[in-house]
Amino acid sequence: MVVAIIGVGLIGGSLAISLKEKGMASRVIGVDQQEQNIKKALDLKLIDAAATLDEAMQQAQLIILAIPVDALMQLLPAMLDKVQPQHVIMDVGSTKKKILELVAGHPNRGRFVAAHPMAGTEYSGPEAAIPNLFTNRTMVLCDVKNSDEDALEIIETLVDALQMRLVYMNAEEHDLHTAYVSHISHITSFALALTVLKKEKEQGRIFELASGGFESTVRLAKSSPDMWVPIFKHNRNNVLDVLDEHIHQLQQMKQLLEEEDYDAFYKLIQKSNKIRKILK
Amino acid sequence: MVVAIIGVGLIGGSLAISLKEKGMASRVIGVDQQEQNIKKALDLKLIDAAATLDEAMQQAQLIILAIPVDALMQLLPAMLDKVQPQHVIMDVGSTKKKILELVAGHPNRGRFVAAHPMAGTEYSGPEAAIPNLFTNRTMVLCDVKNSDEDALEIIETLVDALQMRLVYMNAEEHDLHTAYVSHISHITSFALALTVLKKEKEQGRIFELASGGFESTVRLAKSSPDMWVPIFKHNRNNVLDVLDEHIHQLQQMKQLLEEEDYDAFYKLIQKSNKIRKILK
Repeated sequence: MVVAIIGVGLIGGSLAISLKEKGMASRVIGVDQQEQNIKKALDLKLIDAAATLDEAMQQAQLIILAIPVDALMQLLPAMLDKVQPQHVIMDVGSTKKKILELVAGHPNRGRFVAAHPMAGTEYSGPEAAIPNLFTNRTMVLCDVKNSDEDALEIIETLVDALQMRLVYMNAEEHDLHTAYVSHISHITSFALALTVLKKEKEQGRIFELASGGFESTVRLAKSSPDMWVPIFKHNRNNVLDVLDEHIHQLQQMKQLLEEEDYDAFYKLIQKSNKIRKILK
Repeated sequence: MVVAIIGVGLIGGSLAISLKEKGMASRVIGVDQQEQNIKKALDLKLIDAAATLDEAMQQAQLIILAIPVDALMQLLPAMLDKVQPQHVIMDVGSTKKKILELVAGHPNRGRFVAAHPMAGTEYSGPEAAIPNLFTNRTMVLCDVKNSDEDALEIIETLVDALQMRLVYMNAEEHDLHTAYVSHISHITSFALALTVLKKEKEQGRIFELASGGFESTVRLAKSSPDMWVPIFKHNRNNVLDVLDEHIHQLQQMKQLLEEEDYDAFYKLIQKSNKIRKILK
């Protein structure tokens, strides 16, 4: 099958590698607004050829949108206007509700499958693409009842080829859950980086003692604002809810420390230790 | 040299492994209040023999205190009372100011070297001990002007044998810096775990979509309250300062999201991306 990948960055590029490797794509066509991304993707042999969006839609059967969610909102309706019965369009966006609302009434809605691979790194661009990014990770497919059966089957085959775990969810649930297990992690990392960078400016030498623990909590702060601002925008209400709750938890810890109520602080940490059951 | 390790947990046990392996310790004696820790440490061959604290001080030249900082405060003065001129006592505690204030006037203060290896994992106990935990990590030695020259030399040899990077700092500076690059990371992880665990209780299935990013920011929430409550207690003022600043940063992000000021939000993320220069 010929696959077109719109946006040859970390996710698009990694998909290109894996779909070729697993025999799912006979040929990968890359589309990217940024000339330098196309050049790098060709140099790195992530893609077989470059094309415009229109050319790509003529040549490919499967078209994967791997661009920030705001750009996705711009492109998707016009693509559905032009879609042919043999086409399947899949996205890999990190939010789902607004996108699915946007195309809800479209006569060709059935050719679209809304997907979100729960995989990534803090890096971006074609040079960040890596093999096996998706292996053993979860792929969420949203509101699949609105996709045509044959289109869905192709995406399910793709999920299988990528050796991913498949989860079905509705868009609302998806956006709520990702706010809690993905979006807030990025917010706390950004805020933590800002906190420590500010102190470094006043004090200097702050990072000399940074070790694995700090790196672990702050590495997501390397993530690109081009990707993340549109996510926070799309998922604003859920992100605000979880941010409220997180600030509340921090304020509770602060209060216990102010009151020197170390017994209650101990119990709070014990409670948070229950995360051991969830993380391996 | 015979080395006694008081507290054969993650750090004590890992030191036992490395000091034997690097030829720094000819024999390691383990002391631990918890019978089961001693048993495990013997089973795992982390230590050559078990002893009481008094026996250990009679047999060993170097005595390493690898216990929570509150327990350290309890033991150290009495140990300095009994110390002999050939003894060196080193601690590996995560806070330094209160400990060094406590022993400041002690006639045998010179036999003590205050150390903090910037290494660890979220696990605890003898079974968490691993080889090479300290390799290429930073060892901070605090207020070394108050340690006897020969005692300091032995510890510097140890740092070298462990292939660690050596940093000298005063206790005040150390406690401030670790609040920013270690203690706050644990607070945010504990709070994040509590936030998401609470939602899981209401909603269920929240963790189904958790991926590497979430795991990275929340893994420190597995850390033991026995170790961490005393650290927060000792370093209360610095931790409160950094916690204040961190909550402030989160509130700023929240406000921008409420006001839908995405340009300012974008700039904030860009600013936090400067962490790229610091983390490799």
